[in-house]
Amino acid sequence: MTHTSIALAEELAGIVGERFVRTRPTELLTFAADGLPTHRAVPACVVFPGSASEVSAVLARLHARGTPFVARGAGTGLSGGALAEAPAVLVTLTRMGRILAVDAPNRRAVVEPGVVNATLAREAARVGLHYAPDPSSQSACTIGGNVAENAGGPHCLKYGVTTNHILALEVVRADGERVHLGSASGEPWGPDLAGLFVGSEGTFGVATAITVRLVPVPPTVRTILADFTALRAAGEAVSRIIAEGIVPAALEMMDRSAIGIVESSVYAAGYPTDAAAVLLVECDGREGAVAADIARAEAICREAGAGTVRAARTAAERERLWQGRKKAFGAMGRISADLLVQDATVPRSALPDVLERVAEIGRRHALRVTNVFHAGDGNLHPNLSFDAADPDELARVAVASREIMEVCVAAGGTITGEHGVGVDKKKYMDLVFGPDDLALMDAVRGAFDPSGLANPGKVIPDGAARPWGPWSPA
Amino acid sequence: MTHTSIALAEELAGIVGERFVRTRPTELLTFAADGLPTHRAVPACVVFPGSASEVSAVLARLHARGTPFVARGAGTGLSGGALAEAPAVLVTLTRMGRILAVDAPNRRAVVEPGVVNATLAREAARVGLHYAPDPSSQSACTIGGNVAENAGGPHCLKYGVTTNHILALEVVRADGERVHLGSASGEPWGPDLAGLFVGSEGTFGVATAITVRLVPVPPTVRTILADFTALRAAGEAVSRIIAEGIVPAALEMMDRSAIGIVESSVYAAGYPTDAAAVLLVECDGREGAVAADIARAEAICREAGAGTVRAARTAAERERLWQGRKKAFGAMGRISADLLVQDATVPRSALPDVLERVAEIGRRHALRVTNVFHAGDGNLHPNLSFDAADPDELARVAVASREIMEVCVAAGGTITGEHGVGVDKKKYMDLVFGPDDLALMDAVRGAFDPSGLANPGKVIPDGAARPWGPWSPA
Repeated sequence: MTHTSIALAEELAGIVGERFVRTRPTELLTFAADGLPTHRAVPACVVFPGSASEVSAVLARLHARGTPFVARGAGTGLSGGALAEAPAVLVTLTRMGRILAVDAPNRRAVVEPGVVNATLAREAARVGLHYAPDPSSQSACTIGGNVAENAGGPHCLKYGVTTNHILALEVVRADGERVHLGSASGEPWGPDLAGLFVGSEGTFGVATAITVRLVPVPPTVRTILADFTALRAAGEAVSRIIAEGIVPAALEMMDRSAIGIVESSVYAAGYPTDAAAVLLVECDGREGAVAADIARAEAICREAGAGTVRAARTAAERERLWQGRKKAFGAMGRISADLLVQDATVPRSALPDVLERVAEIGRRHALRVTNVFHAGDGNLHPNLSFDAADPDELARVAVASREIMEVCVAAGGTITGEHGVGVDKKKYMDLVFGPDDLALMDAVRGAFDPSGLANPGKVIPDGAARPWGPWSPA
Repeated sequence: MTHTSIALAEELAGIVGERFVRTRPTELLTFAADGLPTHRAVPACVVFPGSASEVSAVLARLHARGTPFVARGAGTGLSGGALAEAPAVLVTLTRMGRILAVDAPNRRAVVEPGVVNATLAREAARVGLHYAPDPSSQSACTIGGNVAENAGGPHCLKYGVTTNHILALEVVRADGERVHLGSASGEPWGPDLAGLFVGSEGTFGVATAITVRLVPVPPTVRTILADFTALRAAGEAVSRIIAEGIVPAALEMMDRSAIGIVESSVYAAGYPTDAAAVLLVECDGREGAVAADIARAEAICREAGAGTVRAARTAAERERLWQGRKKAFGAMGRISADLLVQDATVPRSALPDVLERVAEIGRRHALRVTNVFHAGDGNLHPNLSFDAADPDELARVAVASREIMEVCVAAGGTITGEHGVGVDKKKYMDLVFGPDDLALMDAVRGAFDPSGLANPGKVIPDGAARPWGPWSPA
């Protein structure tokens, strides 16, 4: 450590206590990556504030020194948004894990940023309510991280992504000032600053109290799993289900590669390994409606050429149908050294064509591509298996990723559905936005954080806009 | 006109053509008010650009001269957001009324800002789709104005307000620069600038092309009207319907005063004039679900003490049930010289208490208060009938309005649900936001419009933040 960073660590320890500042290189290395395997960065130190006041004091201190910072939840992000390179300090929020209030009559809760998504869902269930956004990482990821990335999940098809569930925020800006965005009653008016903050990927400040919307637990849930001998047929079933006006709670697709990986893992869910694709359709709501919708969805799957259609008759059977989907990323992680979970969206009508193009890109670059994705809202996850220690393979992953993004954008889609831009997707921003558009984003960011100290170097491509803030990596 | 404004009008005529610039005092007077009866302002001139290029050229010209401007659609706004005081120029967008594209497979359309809400709904219906937000003024108000105010409407209970239906925007900033916000595929990521623009009340620039989301026309719609002998009982029926997880397409309430006014007008809809309140419940979707939900809603109304419950058996009968609700504002407009349509939200659970407090405020100030409102989402419209020519009555309206806002905020609500802040609600902003919050709003506004020329003096209270921009009313 430099003398400067030793002095800084001591100052921060004066705010949060010595045990909540980490400076040893071996400790710092455990914070050098998040869920994105292609980028690493080591912070100057890691600080764990325990309250909004401590966050405010820490940021004020860093601001006074002109030191940049990166906020981090559980580090499950997939775009490298929580990476901090020294001299930047990592502000980890896992100690702030309290549920401050659950207001059942008005269906809302107030939580600290470090509350784990699944914990909030469990606590809400005690009063018959539910927190709807359910990222695959929900057993680990935090609500603060979900807010930063505007996280999605299988059930966001019906319920909407994180931004639709955030009513109000207490935010500490980069200079330590605390502000309040949105209103607990959730009525949008004037500039929607809470909506603006959700998805700003840590570049606007740190959320220290989050008022979320809760929804009633649906009285009935029904789930079916249909298998198809052609990926295109599964894609067409998706289009027809949506076209008929059915709004499933979830509509998920897995391709042959994904089925094979899951079924040869400890998470085997009984999916038919000879199928080209399986489609998981879940409807929830009141009994009569759900029964009618699921019957029609099943008929549509059969008309589109489904082989067998299995229906879960019990909660345990439903768990089992979901198991393969929920554990797919874990299972994929075991078949290769590294896994890049790609993320893009396309119009639903373009799904069949885009899936064929993606498969062709994989073949051409000799990369295994596995698709596990939110078919109902056109949110693709083509996952690339590789070994980061093989420079040639790493290079092919980079080229294939860009080609996949170009195909999605050309089909009328965009470069991320739910994982954010972070460091990884900055290079694709010019596929979607012109220089004026990027300069405006930069100006809005500058309104929240004139210092440029909050998560610098993320989201907006280097040099695309004005040189970023007073601080820039030398 | 001053020499300056004559020269300016000539310059603008050079851009849009002479017939599309109005400068005569009598012509200007017709633009001196919008739907808010308590404020008036006369612009320096009115310009009617016919294209995005003309908007851009007009704003660039005004920017070069340091002249402020206000964008205006149909002028149906209820918070004075479209008022322009000379030297400000009014930029009226009614000529830009083209529907540029309807993309049925991907359920979206691209429209110019001057397209009337009901026209878009009608055109979408040709391909089996629907534009969901339906403000009471939908036969006149424009999509550009809806975007500026983040307009709501009865069916926003199920479908969400305007911001949930805007995918992307082409915006001309105050200096004439054109930028693109959001993406047509509608996936939010990074700072949600399209979401930020929606509801910014004309202070961020002018939307010149708006990509909206369309939804399928529901196959079944069922509507019932229940009458109650006590307002509180109707409020409790609302709470129970929502608590059971039913999501009606609309859940509207009218009080005794509103029923009386409608039934003694040409719009008489057959509402029972001895009722303390009527509740209109509409469910839409697929047949089985709708039938089950509406039967349960009817049972809940009866359990809560409803007298008669009428069900519409045909589209014509449904129209008739809705007629009283849709024409209520027109009918109210006829019983007094002026009508202030108030707008606030409260948690649904607070509805019965707040309605009693509002009635008491009306009695104390000897003002007729009529409630016609979106009960399902707690969006109140206490309407005050008065005569603006009576200074004493005008003063009582001002005091009563503030008291109503204070009651709503104290109950956990906020100062506007769907009408915006404009000029009228600026004075209540301090009930909800502190100085730091307001300063941040002002900074974000400054990122979009550093010049401060776009709709100055609206939304943010005078003196609450830094002196606004280089331009300020001298």
